[in-house]
Amino acid sequence: MQAEIIAVGTEMLLGEITDTNSPYLARQLAQLGIDIYYQETVGDNPQRITALLQQASQRSDLVILSGGLGPTADDVTKRTVAEFLHQPLVTNAQAKEKLTATAARLQHALTPNNLVQAQLPAGGEPLPNRTGLAVGSWNVMQGTIYVTLPGPPQEFKPMVSEQLIPRLAQHTHKVLASTMLRFYGLTESVIATKLAPLIDAQTNPTIAIYYQFPDIAVRVTAQAADHAAAEQLVAPVAAQVKDLLGDAYYGTGEHGSLAQVVGQQLIARHLTITAAESLTAGEFQASLGTVSGISAVFPGGFVTYAPAQKTAMIGVPAATIKQYGVVSRETAAAMAEGARAKVGTDYALGFTGVAGPDTLEGQPAGTVFIGLAGPQGTTVQEFHLLGSRNEVRARAVAWGFKMLQNALKN
Amino acid sequence: MQAEIIAVGTEMLLGEITDTNSPYLARQLAQLGIDIYYQETVGDNPQRITALLQQASQRSDLVILSGGLGPTADDVTKRTVAEFLHQPLVTNAQAKEKLTATAARLQHALTPNNLVQAQLPAGGEPLPNRTGLAVGSWNVMQGTIYVTLPGPPQEFKPMVSEQLIPRLAQHTHKVLASTMLRFYGLTESVIATKLAPLIDAQTNPTIAIYYQFPDIAVRVTAQAADHAAAEQLVAPVAAQVKDLLGDAYYGTGEHGSLAQVVGQQLIARHLTITAAESLTAGEFQASLGTVSGISAVFPGGFVTYAPAQKTAMIGVPAATIKQYGVVSRETAAAMAEGARAKVGTDYALGFTGVAGPDTLEGQPAGTVFIGLAGPQGTTVQEFHLLGSRNEVRARAVAWGFKMLQNALKN
Repeated sequence: MQAEIIAVGTEMLLGEITDTNSPYLARQLAQLGIDIYYQETVGDNPQRITALLQQASQRSDLVILSGGLGPTADDVTKRTVAEFLHQPLVTNAQAKEKLTATAARLQHALTPNNLVQAQLPAGGEPLPNRTGLAVGSWNVMQGTIYVTLPGPPQEFKPMVSEQLIPRLAQHTHKVLASTMLRFYGLTESVIATKLAPLIDAQTNPTIAIYYQFPDIAVRVTAQAADHAAAEQLVAPVAAQVKDLLGDAYYGTGEHGSLAQVVGQQLIARHLTITAAESLTAGEFQASLGTVSGISAVFPGGFVTYAPAQKTAMIGVPAATIKQYGVVSRETAAAMAEGARAKVGTDYALGFTGVAGPDTLEGQPAGTVFIGLAGPQGTTVQEFHLLGSRNEVRARAVAWGFKMLQNALKN
Repeated sequence: MQAEIIAVGTEMLLGEITDTNSPYLARQLAQLGIDIYYQETVGDNPQRITALLQQASQRSDLVILSGGLGPTADDVTKRTVAEFLHQPLVTNAQAKEKLTATAARLQHALTPNNLVQAQLPAGGEPLPNRTGLAVGSWNVMQGTIYVTLPGPPQEFKPMVSEQLIPRLAQHTHKVLASTMLRFYGLTESVIATKLAPLIDAQTNPTIAIYYQFPDIAVRVTAQAADHAAAEQLVAPVAAQVKDLLGDAYYGTGEHGSLAQVVGQQLIARHLTITAAESLTAGEFQASLGTVSGISAVFPGGFVTYAPAQKTAMIGVPAATIKQYGVVSRETAAAMAEGARAKVGTDYALGFTGVAGPDTLEGQPAGTVFIGLAGPQGTTVQEFHLLGSRNEVRARAVAWGFKMLQNALKN
C-alpha cells in the first residue's frame, strides 16, 4: 500500500506553523509497512487541493489530508474532497450532538459555520474526534482511500492512533512489531556509540535512535508472518539495548514521559511526594500534575524563588544560604528536607541552580543542585546542564524524576 | 514571483525528523512577497525528484531544494538537478579548498564522496556554506531559478538569510508589512464571526486568523511600494481588529505568550506576584519562571493540591472548604488572599477546579474558579473550560494571566 500525505493550511506555506502532524503520521504508517513517496503542503485553496487530489489518485492507494476542517470560511478541505468524490456533504448526527452540547455548556450560540464541522462526504465513514469538534472522514473511490483529519495536533494525533491506524491495520498484511525504549541522561552520540555494534549486526529487528527532547528513544522493529512472531524477534534485542545503556533506561512507550512513568510508580506504591523549587519555578510539580490520579500521593509543595522564601516557607536556615550560597549542595539538601518535614511526605525534592541566561553567585548558567530527601536519608546531585533557560529547567526537572526513580529501585 | 519548496530526504517521509527548514524559508519568502503555493517532501530518489522538478518547472519561477547535498551515496540532489538542467557537475574551487583544509585539520583522508560536496551544476553560481562543507547552487533555465541548499538546519538557515534572500531581494519589487495581534479568551468561530465584515471588505491589507493553542492570533498584512507605506496601511486595520475584539487582546508579536507579556508588565511596574495553585499544580508559576528577570517580582508561591495543604500552607479556613467545597468561588478567593498575605506581594492568584478526566465534588471536568487578590480587593471568575486534562490546565493558567493583565489596566 502506497500513501500520500497532504497537509492543508496557508499558515504552513507562510511558515507560521511547523507541520508536526505529517511526521507523526508517517511514523505510524511506517510501522504498518505502508510506504510514503510524497508529502505535500498546500494552502486553503480548493483548486490547488483538487489538483493534488487528482495527482494523488493516480499514484497512491491512500490519501490523507490534514487541516482545514474548522469552522472558518477558509476551512475548505471537506467541501473540496466531497466535490472531488462527487458526493454531497452530509451531517453526522453524533458530531452534531457533540457540537450542540458543547455550545450549550459554554453558553455560546451555534453559528452555521460551527455546524460544518459535523459534516463529511456522503458514502463515507465518520472518524470520531475525541478531543475536538470537527469529525474526520474515510471515503473510498475507485480503490483509493481518502481520509480527512483535523489540523490541531491535539486532535490529529489521537485520531491517527485511535481511529485511522486500527482501520488501516485491517487493510495491510505486513505484520510489524516494535517497541520504543526511553532513556534519559545520556547524549545521542554516546548512545549511538554504545549501540553501534548491535545496530550494524541487525537487519531484522532494526534499531533506530530518536532524539525527543529531553529524552532519547530507541525503537526496535521486527517484521514477521504474525504479530507474536514479530514480538518474539523484538524482545531479546530490546533487552540487549537496555543492558547496553544501563541506568539511563526509564520506561517503554511511544509517548513516554518521565513524569508519567515515575508518577505512576508513586501512585502504585502509595509513596507520597512534595518539592521545593527554585530555578524550575513549579515545573516539576506541574509535570506531576499531568499524571491522572496523582492527587492520591501529591499533597502539594512550594516554589521558593527568593532566598527569603526558602527560609519562610520551608525553614531553610538563613545561615546555610549565607555560608554556602543559594546555588549549593547544602541549600538543595535543606530545601528537600524542609519541604519533606513541612508536608510530611515519603519523598521530597529540592531544586536550586542557575537557569540563565545570566550567572548567579558567580556560577555559570546550567549549574544545578538537586536534593532528594527520603526514608533512606538525603542525597544531592550536582549537574552542569546545557541549553537555553527553558532547556536547563526542563533537563533539571527530568533529572529530578530520574533521581526519584533510581531511589525507588532500592 | 511564485516559489516552490522541495525538501529531499527519506528520513522525513519516515517521520524520523521534522522539517523545520521549509517553514523558516517560507517566512523569509513571505517577507519578500514571494508566494508559495506548494511544498513537497520526497525521498532520496532521483526519479521522483525529477518528476517533482518537471512539475515545478511548469508552475513556479523559483524552485528551492533542501537536503541531499552530503557525502553519502544517498545524497542525490545535486546530481539529479544537474541532469534535469542538462549540465555536468563542476567543482567549485573555494568549496574544494575548504573541504581539503577541514580534512587536513581533522586528519581525515578526503574520499571522492567528500569531494562531491564541492560540486554544482555547470553554468550556475555557488552559494557559499559558511557553517558547513556542502556548497549550494543557483541555476537558471528557461526563466526559472533552481536553488539547492544543504539539509542540516544549522547550514540551511544561515545560507537562506545570508545568501539566498539578498539575491532574491534583487528579483522582486513587492514590499510587505504585517503585524500579528494576539488574543486570548474568545473562540476561533466567535472571532471569525466578529471579524467577518472586516475580512470580507479588505483586500489590502488582508486579515487572517490563526489558532495557536491556547491563543488566537490575527495577522494583518499589507503590500505597498515601500515598507513605510505598507505599515501605514496595516496600522488602521490592526486598530479596527483590536477594537472589534475588545478585552481579548493581550499583545502583539510573532511568538507572543501571555506569560511573557504579563511577566514583563509586572517587572516594568515593579509589581510583585505570587500564587496558590490546585488544579494547575504549579504551571502558572512555572510559566512565570520562563520570563527572564522575573525573580525581581516573583518571590515564590504554593502548590496546594490537597485540601489540608490549602489550610496548612496558606491558611484557607477548613470551614470555608467544608461549607463551599474545594471547587468554589469562596475557596478560590481564600487561596488568593492567603497566598498574598503569606508572601506579602501586590497580587496573588488562587486556582482551584477540576482538571479531569473525572468529576470532583459533583462538578464536571473543566469547572475552574480563579481568585485574584490585589490592592483593589479580591475578585473571582468562574470558567467552564474545554479539552483534555492538560488543555484545561493550560487554559486556566492563561485565564489567570489574562485576569492579572486586566487588573493591571485599571
